[in-house]
Order: sequence, then C-alpha cells, then structure tokens
Amino acid sequence: MNQAGSGADRETRSAGDFPDCLLQPQKRLQQLILARIEVLRPDSLHRAVVAATSGGKRLRPSLAMWFGDALGVPAEAIEPIACLTEWLHSAFLIHDDIQDGDQWRRDRESLWKSHGVPTALNAADWLLSAVYEEVTRIEVDENCRAWLLRSVQDVHRRTVVGQQLDLDGRGDPAFNLSCYEQAVQAKTGRYLALGMVASAIVAGLDEETIDSLWRVGDQLGPAFQIQDDLLDMTRSKGRAGEVGNDIREGKPSILYAHALEEGDLSVSECDRLVEVMARDRAQTSDQDVGWVIDLFDRCGSVEFARQQARTRAQEGIRLFKETPGMSSEVCDQFASIARFAVERNR
Amino acid sequence: MNQAGSGADRETRSAGDFPDCLLQPQKRLQQLILARIEVLRPDSLHRAVVAATSGGKRLRPSLAMWFGDALGVPAEAIEPIACLTEWLHSAFLIHDDIQDGDQWRRDRESLWKSHGVPTALNAADWLLSAVYEEVTRIEVDENCRAWLLRSVQDVHRRTVVGQQLDLDGRGDPAFNLSCYEQAVQAKTGRYLALGMVASAIVAGLDEETIDSLWRVGDQLGPAFQIQDDLLDMTRSKGRAGEVGNDIREGKPSILYAHALEEGDLSVSECDRLVEVMARDRAQTSDQDVGWVIDLFDRCGSVEFARQQARTRAQEGIRLFKETPGMSSEVCDQFASIARFAVERNR
Repeated sequence: MNQAGSGADRETRSAGDFPDCLLQPQKRLQQLILARIEVLRPDSLHRAVVAATSGGKRLRPSLAMWFGDALGVPAEAIEPIACLTEWLHSAFLIHDDIQDGDQWRRDRESLWKSHGVPTALNAADWLLSAVYEEVTRIEVDENCRAWLLRSVQDVHRRTVVGQQLDLDGRGDPAFNLSCYEQAVQAKTGRYLALGMVASAIVAGLDEETIDSLWRVGDQLGPAFQIQDDLLDMTRSKGRAGEVGNDIREGKPSILYAHALEEGDLSVSECDRLVEVMARDRAQTSDQDVGWVIDLFDRCGSVEFARQQARTRAQEGIRLFKETPGMSSEVCDQFASIARFAVERNR
Repeated sequence: MNQAGSGADRETRSAGDFPDCLLQPQKRLQQLILARIEVLRPDSLHRAVVAATSGGKRLRPSLAMWFGDALGVPAEAIEPIACLTEWLHSAFLIHDDIQDGDQWRRDRESLWKSHGVPTALNAADWLLSAVYEEVTRIEVDENCRAWLLRSVQDVHRRTVVGQQLDLDGRGDPAFNLSCYEQAVQAKTGRYLALGMVASAIVAGLDEETIDSLWRVGDQLGPAFQIQDDLLDMTRSKGRAGEVGNDIREGKPSILYAHALEEGDLSVSECDRLVEVMARDRAQTSDQDVGWVIDLFDRCGSVEFARQQARTRAQEGIRLFKETPGMSSEVCDQFASIARFAVERNR
C-alpha cells in the first residue's frame, strides 16, 4: 500500500492527504489493474508493464471511478475508462523519463533504467495500444463510443503537442508566462479531466456539461502540475531524495517563466539562470541547483507559483459547482480533491 | 520521387519494380500525407514528422488505396485508412531505430539521430495519436467504425508483442524456427494486411472474407520481412551502403533461426555465431559480419530464406484468389504486388 493510501489510518486527516472519497476507488483499482495486465505475454513485456504501473497514486483513474460512481455509471463502463487513464499516464511517464534522462520515478529506478530503453519503449507502445483497447471494451452504444474515441484521441494528441512545447522551452531565454500557459494547458489541461469527462459521456450528460468539465480540468490540471513543480524543490518527489531535478533537466516550469518575465533579474542573474537551465544535467552541480532555487525564492517566483496553484484550484472548484446537475455532496468531494492537488506534500 | 516510382519510366518492367497498380495510389499519397501533416504545430514537431514520413515506398498505404479503389470504397473512407497505415508504420520505425541504435533509414539519418531522442519520441507519439484520429475521420456508420477500431488496435497490440519477441530473441542460443514464426507472425502478419482489411470492412464484405484477407497478410507480411532480411546482407537497404546491419544489432532473423536449428553447425561455429549476434554493435567488426554472412550462405540458410519468401508469396497469392468476390484483374494485380514483395532489390 502506498503512502497516500495509508493516510486513511490516521486519526485526523489534512487537506494534503489523499482524499477520502478516492480511497475506495484507489483500492479497487489496485486489483483491477493487475488483473488487466496478468494476461500479457511475453514475460519480459509483462514484467515491464507491471513495473511501469506500480507505486503511483492512481489519481487519474481514481477520479474517473469516483465520478462515474457519483453519476451512477455501471462498473462495466467505469472500469475500462479508469484503466485507460492509467495506461495513458503510464505510457507518457515512460517516454518522459527517457526524454529527460530521469533515473528515478516513485522512489524506484525509472523503467528505461531498470528494463533498458528498448523494452521500456515497447511497454509504452503496449500501454498506448491498451488505451484504445479499453475504448473498445466500454459497454455503450456505438455513437457514444465514437464520442469517447474522439475525446481520448484528442487528449492523446494535445498532450504530445504540450510535451513538445515543453521540450522547446528548455534553456530558452525568451520563455515567458504566456509560453508556459500554452504548454501547460496542452500538456495537462484536458488530461486530468479525461476520466471525469468520459464518465459523463457514458452517463449521457449533454455537451454543455461536458464542456464545463473540460474547463474544470483546464484549471485543475495546471494547479496539480504547479504543485509538482514546487515539490520538485523538496526531497519528497519520489526521486530518491534528489532535489531540483526539474532544474537539472532545464524544465520550463512556471517558476522559470516567472523569474525571467517578472523576477526583475539583473542581466548576470538572467544569463546564469538560462545557462544553468540549458546545461546538460550531468554538468549541473548541486550548487547550481541551490542557486536557482534561492533565486526563484528571492525574486518571488515560488510565492507566485503557490498563489497560482491555489487560485486555479479555487477556480476549478467554482467551475465544478456551476456544472449542471452536481449534488452538494459531490461538489464537496471535488473540493477536497482539488485542495489535495495543491496541498499534497508528495 | 523515389526510386520505386521512377520505375514507371522504363520501357520494360520487372517483378522487382514497384507494381504498376500501386503507382497511382503512391502518387496520390504523396500529396495527401503532406497535407495531413501541414497543420501540425509546434514547428519542431512538424519538421520531425515530415522527416519521419519522407522517402519510403509507402507500400502499406498504397496497398490500402489500391484495394479500396478496387472495392469501390469512396475516397473519404479510403484516405483516412491509407494514412493510418502510414502513421502506424512510421511510428514503429522511429521506435525500432531507437531500440536498435540504427543510425540510418532510407539513406538518411534516422530520426533520433537527426532530431534527437526526445523529439523523435514525441513524433512517434503524435503519429500514434494520428492513427486513431484517422479512425474518427472515416466516413462510415458507427458499428463499422467500432469494428475498424478493434482491428487497428489489435494490429497495434500484436505488433508490439512481436517486437518484444524479436528483442527477446537477440543473442538467444535457443532461438529456432518456431520462435521465429511466432515473432514474425505477431510483428508483420496482420500489419501488412491492415489497410486491405479496413477497406474491406468499409466496403461491407462479410467476416469470412475479412478472415481470408487476414490470412493473406499472414503469408505476405512474413514474405516481405524475409526479403528485407535478405536485402540487409546487400548494400541496397537504405543504410548508406552499410552491409549486415541486422547482424550488427543481433536481429533474430529467419537466417539466424535456420542456421542454429538446421545449419548443421559445429559447436565452435554455433558459439561464434551466438557470440557475434549477442555482442554490442559497436564491438562487431566488418570481419565478423562477413563471417556470419558467409556462414548463412554455406549452411543453406540464405537459400532456405529465399525459398520461404517465395513459397509464402505464392501461398498469399493462392489465398487471395480463393477470397470470395475478387475479380481476375484484381487477383493479377495482387500477384504482381506479392511478387514485388519478394523480388524487389531495395
């Protein structure tokens, strides 16, 4: 059982704990995901996919399952939807770690490191094929399936475009908050909401409601990502205690965008920041990382990011409450999920 | 215009030239594919996808288009089908080259070499998303689209499994013809037939006919692959004149399987063969490659592979002729395509 789940045993729970309403879905998913993968052969591919899908919080599929339950969607439709969000996420993480040269993920070796790049690529390819296999499995009428397919494919495509904008921004001295917004919207906006949207499509909700849920994701996805960027500067992000991994790989985060555009940096600070971010990770020292973290703090970028995460989470909660047909209980549960996204400490 | 297309200008054409019936589809595809990609942004992703989809024979989409035309399928349905076969093939080639460390593809630098691994991975991810976007575009009723989705996803999944069997066989002393058969069927069997099958689904042909077309692919796909393995031992495979790339990367080809199982090798020959195939490509000398090619020739593996390619092509032609509803003109054209698959010299 992972750290997040064990929060249930504590007497008092804080907003930073995995949300109560997601604990039951998270538990169901554990068995479901293993059962789905069990049949996979050859063994080498099976082992790699098991490793790739182990140890995470399963936030995306839990969200899909919680929302599907709330809308009364039957398990035969919710389960494939929950699984496809997990497969998509896992495939992207495998590619992300290869692209960034990240050696750690969830306090274990990343997949390319433990299983080699060739098998890691195959595992991601299998996971992407599994995303679409789940679309074929959902028990719905064919018009509905076509809508689900369009939604899944659209999120897949947007995420790739966002990832490319992210790659393009590495060590770019002209990177600013508008570039950041474009990248983060493409990369995380629709992605976090996919499971909720898919459940809503199956439940027969109308287009206006679906659009409203996508807009909720446009707020919550970036809020979640910004909290990730903040956690990267602490020891708790699942990289075996390493601090500042995003700085080592030159990730164009909201902190980097804010510091360059609004940080009021001197020319020499600006040059050094860009130079450290552009430099190969093997050549980036702990001292460089410490200097950048300190700079982000001094020039107000850390406070700006914290504020942005909170504001977006609040806006997500507001938009969710305005979505037609949401009960007050479901709205309260969503609010606890949104607060978790920006107050979690891992 | 590539080599294959220019064959049309010669006075006499041989079975090794790109088939006449595919020349018109090949030409139409050139424009169609560029138009499809044109909208892609950011520019860095656009450039990578253009590079990834340039210069090939476009056999798979040409086959889809030729067969769709023959069945009277309208262009609005054929074009997405043809494109999706090209996107799927291009995505796999990108991953294949990264997995194998191949520096050359179609006489140019492979994508990871020219654009870097991170962007190459993104290009492949975009192409895979585009495969499924094409499924959403095909103008058919939704029951038909669901069948198409199942077929595309099944080919995607099987190909990944085949690729893993292929990776597992590298430098494996126990690799034999039965292992080879399992890997090649999974990796290439359904893959080559996908465009024909999809056209047949849209044309409303029955399940028996569709099954028959899959079985045609089960013969033609491996025939095509075996010819590829034979060409790899010549200078004409699009790797800037390099010979024996498959040997350098330890690929478990039909030649390797035959030599180990039926080649009547001495213990020292067997040990050396496995050792060369298992060795890192940077440590494999031209002399090693020459020795393996000579061994494959001496122990009858080259002749066995040639015979296998021809037999499977003939069997594919026979099965195609037995498929209900195929005119004699279409059967003749298919026969010219099958002969091309095994008599082409690049």
